Amino acid sequence: MKIEVRKNILQTNAAAAARNRELLGQHDVCMVNLMASPGAGKTSTIIRAIENAGPLRLAVIEGDIASEIDSLAIEALDVTALQINTGGSCHLTAAMISSALGYLELEELDLIIIENVGNLVCPAEFDLGETARVMIASVAEGDDKPHKYPLMFREVDAVLVNKIDLLPYCDFDLDEFRQLVGRLNPRAPIIELSCKDGDGAGAWSRWLTDTAAKVTG
Amino acid sequence: MKIEVRKNILQTNAAAAARNRELLGQHDVCMVNLMASPGAGKTSTIIRAIENAGPLRLAVIEGDIASEIDSLAIEALDVTALQINTGGSCHLTAAMISSALGYLELEELDLIIIENVGNLVCPAEFDLGETARVMIASVAEGDDKPHKYPLMFREVDAVLVNKIDLLPYCDFDLDEFRQLVGRLNPRAPIIELSCKDGDGAGAWSRWLTDTAAKVTG
Repeated sequence: MKIEVRKNILQTNAAAAARNRELLGQHDVCMVNLMASPGAGKTSTIIRAIENAGPLRLAVIEGDIASEIDSLAIEALDVTALQINTGGSCHLTAAMISSALGYLELEELDLIIIENVGNLVCPAEFDLGETARVMIASVAEGDDKPHKYPLMFREVDAVLVNKIDLLPYCDFDLDEFRQLVGRLNPRAPIIELSCKDGDGAGAWSRWLTDTAAKVTG
Repeated sequence: MKIEVRKNILQTNAAAAARNRELLGQHDVCMVNLMASPGAGKTSTIIRAIENAGPLRLAVIEGDIASEIDSLAIEALDVTALQINTGGSCHLTAAMISSALGYLELEELDLIIIENVGNLVCPAEFDLGETARVMIASVAEGDDKPHKYPLMFREVDAVLVNKIDLLPYCDFDLDEFRQLVGRLNPRAPIIELSCKDGDGAGAWSRWLTDTAAKVTG
């Protein structure tokens, strides 16, 4: 019974995701779904992407249980940011993104970055109609997260390791982490990043630009 | 329709939680539900509690999507640790805890610590039948989390601020954080902790001992 309900929710979501994907395809817009634990640096990572966006025309969709502090931080950079407050829901759904897309001028955009709700579990299960999925692991979280959240690590197209400036102060073995991730998902590049210092921001932007280029041509 | 389903799930859970609470009451056992983001230091915080447990007879229930690395770490300290793997579920339920309690000799215990799934959202909604709820915020996550996960901060009986050893390297304003938490939940003490260095481990253990004493008499 419970499984049936869940199956129906995921089927409904998949249909909405397919419609989002079709709409974005019609306008040659790339959409990246950015997922991470609370406090791993999602908003800072988006801000670094904006600073290095070059000619890419960009908008942001912010997902949070409550508050609009993240979208205000993005708008301060003169980038369109839509805030979705999910209420109690621990993940964004394709229907929520569909509503948000209605507020954007898609013909004026190359790239939409979605900041999902801070959670390593359910966001991995909900297709939003995105072009690519990215997760951020923070050095402060420890190197054992691939053991505990394997679906998230398997489902993404790139893994950002943020807060590498904290490496000297945390028990985080980068080689061990790379091996664990590589076993779950050999095709995803692992990009080291320090949003604080800006290290790795160029590599992250190149990945975004390359991914967008596959869509915008 | 979706709301009804959710309501039924929460009602079923509340009934199972009440049964757990009754069972624990019969044996004068205190149960603490420990919640936090992935990588905030839940297992390390439990290890510090074990090291400073004094005469308290303790067992641990570990909740994770996958893997048993945390329960193995606890068992290495000669403490009984039961691992619950939730599969896809982003939170523990009272029914899962009920199953685990069946494996414990309750008359031989004073305190059970539950490590919930790493998630600041859904665990706050699911009563497990616990005596008290504790959350851990990590300094590395930033001081803005009360804005984004207000329910979690409202629902707990104590807030641990872990990784205070990282304060010099992170943008975390402890006064600001204390004010935000105090507005959401004035009755919860805020305990500063460094599981790495052991700072604050005494205060955390005193809180646990005092909380257990209310039950064990």
